Amino acid sequence: MPRRPVVAVLEGTRAVRGLERVAGLAEVRITRAPDLGQALAGADVLYLWDYFSGALPAAWHAAGSLRWLHVAAAGVDKLLFPELVASDVVVTNAHGIFDQPMAEYVLGAMLHAAKGFGPLRDQQYEGLWGWREGRNIAGTRALVVGTGSIGRHTARLLRAVGVHVEGAGRTPREHDDDFGRVHASADLAGVVGDVDWLILVAPLTPATENLVDARVIDALPSSAVLINAGRGRLVDEEALVRSLTGRRLAGAVLDTFVVEPLPPGHPLWSLPSVLVTPHMASNADSWLDDLAAQFERNFLLWMAGEPLPGVVDKALGYVPSGTSR
Amino acid sequence: MPRRPVVAVLEGTRAVRGLERVAGLAEVRITRAPDLGQALAGADVLYLWDYFSGALPAAWHAAGSLRWLHVAAAGVDKLLFPELVASDVVVTNAHGIFDQPMAEYVLGAMLHAAKGFGPLRDQQYEGLWGWREGRNIAGTRALVVGTGSIGRHTARLLRAVGVHVEGAGRTPREHDDDFGRVHASADLAGVVGDVDWLILVAPLTPATENLVDARVIDALPSSAVLINAGRGRLVDEEALVRSLTGRRLAGAVLDTFVVEPLPPGHPLWSLPSVLVTPHMASNADSWLDDLAAQFERNFLLWMAGEPLPGVVDKALGYVPSGTSR
Repeated sequence: MPRRPVVAVLEGTRAVRGLERVAGLAEVRITRAPDLGQALAGADVLYLWDYFSGALPAAWHAAGSLRWLHVAAAGVDKLLFPELVASDVVVTNAHGIFDQPMAEYVLGAMLHAAKGFGPLRDQQYEGLWGWREGRNIAGTRALVVGTGSIGRHTARLLRAVGVHVEGAGRTPREHDDDFGRVHASADLAGVVGDVDWLILVAPLTPATENLVDARVIDALPSSAVLINAGRGRLVDEEALVRSLTGRRLAGAVLDTFVVEPLPPGHPLWSLPSVLVTPHMASNADSWLDDLAAQFERNFLLWMAGEPLPGVVDKALGYVPSGTSR
Repeated sequence: MPRRPVVAVLEGTRAVRGLERVAGLAEVRITRAPDLGQALAGADVLYLWDYFSGALPAAWHAAGSLRWLHVAAAGVDKLLFPELVASDVVVTNAHGIFDQPMAEYVLGAMLHAAKGFGPLRDQQYEGLWGWREGRNIAGTRALVVGTGSIGRHTARLLRAVGVHVEGAGRTPREHDDDFGRVHASADLAGVVGDVDWLILVAPLTPATENLVDARVIDALPSSAVLINAGRGRLVDEEALVRSLTGRRLAGAVLDTFVVEPLPPGHPLWSLPSVLVTPHMASNADSWLDDLAAQFERNFLLWMAGEPLPGVVDKALGYVPSGTSR
C-alpha cells in the first residue's frame, strides 16, 4: 500500500472548511503560521487557506518534499518569493472562483459613479434634496486592464449591458472573443485618452507594478473614473490623489491600496469623489465554500495524476489566459 | 392656405428647447403658469415641458380648442384631472425616453445594496476599514411591478446580467417575452415571499395607489430590498419605515416619496439601510434633448395626421403595454 500523502493546511483567523474527503485520502496537518515549518516537514501538498499569510519564506527550509502548493486566492504577488519561483513546486490558485463577484463589483462601481450615489449618500445624512442628473453607462467606453479569467468575465458582463469594452494586457491582439481589441499594457498612456472607465483587474507583477503612473493618469479625460479591484501597487497612488484633488479626474472606486488596511488619515478616505471599499470585491455569497470545493476537486485530480487547472506561471506571476478556461 | 396651428408651451424654471422646426409650422406661445389660460385660448396643442406643473386645471376653461396635450414625463398621475379625462383631448407622454436611465438606476440600486456600498461609504468618512462580504446579484430573484415600457426594459437589463425576473401588472399572464410570468398586482402579498428584490416602476393610478401596503411589506423575506423608482404613493411609507427600522426588511433604495422633496426630519433620511435619491432615476445624459426631439417628431406626425406614439389611456392612467413598442 502506497504511503498516504501529507497535506499541510495553513489556517488563519478563519477556520478551514471542507476537508472531509481529503482527510480520507491523506494525512492532513492543519497549522497556524508559527508552526508551519513543523507541518511542512515531509508534506507533499501545502494548502494556503490563509491566503494573505506571509509565513512561507521563513518555513521554506522544511519544504523539501513539497510538490504542489494551492492558494485560496487569485493574486499570488505576495506568495512568489525567489526560492518558490526557482523550485519545481507546482503553484495553483483559486482560478475562476472570483470571476462573478469581481465582475459585479466593477459593474456596481460604474453605476455608483454614473448615478452619483456617493454624493447623494453624503447629502442624505444632511437631509439635503439636491437634484442631480445621472449618466447612462450604455454606450460608454471601458478599458479593462487584465485579460485573465476575471478580466474576461468582467468584459462579458459589461458588454451585456451595452458598454463598449476593450482590453489591455501583456500581448496586444485584435479580434479577441471577449475584448475585441487588446492593447499592450505598456502603451496605456496612448490609449486611455477617450475612455470613460479605466478598470484594473490585472495581477501585480514586475511588469504591472506602477502601470497606471502619473503619465497614464494625466492622459485620462477629466470625466473618467478609475476602478481598481486588482492591486494597489498597480497605481501611482500619490499621482492619483493629486489628480482627484485637483479634479482632473472625475472619480475613483478603489478596493485595493498600496498599504492595506488603508492607513488612518490617508487622503483617499476623505475625497468625496472616491469610494473606498475594504478589499472585498472578490468576496460574495458562497465564496468560502466555493474555495473549499475547488481544493477538494483539485486534490482528487492531483491524486489521480491528472493535470491541475489554474496553474500559475511563476515567471509571469499569474495563470496565463486560456490555459484553464 | 389653412390656418397655422397654435402650440402653447408651458415652461418652468428650465427653458424649453428644440422648438425650431415646430415654430416654422405653427404659432408657438411659450408661457409660464400664471399666463397659461391666455396662451391656451385658441390653442390646438399644449406641450407641458414643465412636467411637474399643476397649473392646467385652473386654466382649463380656456382650453376649448385643445386637441392634443403632450407631457415631457412618463407618469401622468398629477395631470389626469377629471375634466381632461372626460374630454376628447389626446394625451401623449414621453414614452421610451426614460427606459434606459430607469433600468440602469434599478440595476445600480441592486448592486449598491448587494455590495453594501451604503454602509461602506458611511465607514469611509470615519476612516474605518470594516471588511464585509458582498452578495452576487446573478441568480437572485427580482419582481418588477410595472409591465410598461420602463418595466420591460428593466427586465431585459436584469436578465442580461443573470437575474431571475418575473413581473407584476394589471393582467396576469404566462409566457411573456420579457417577464416570463406576470403576476396580478392585486395578489402581490402572495407572490413576494421568495423575492430578493421588489422593484417598483409602475404608474400611480387608483389601482396601484398603496399597492405595497403593510401586508405586502410583511410578506417580503427579511433579506429583501425594495427599490421604488415609480411613485411614492405606490407604497405605504409608514409601514415601510416601521419594517426597515425593525430590520424586518434588509434595505431600500428610494427615488420617489409620498411628499417630494422628502421633508426635513423624515425618518427615511437617516436609516442606514436606505439610500435616498432625489427623484433623478429617469434623468441622465441627453434626456432633455431627447424629450425635445420626441416632441418635434410627434408634432410632425400630428401635422401629417399620422397616429401618435405613447398615447395615454386616460381611464387606465398610463400607456398600455404593447401599444407603441
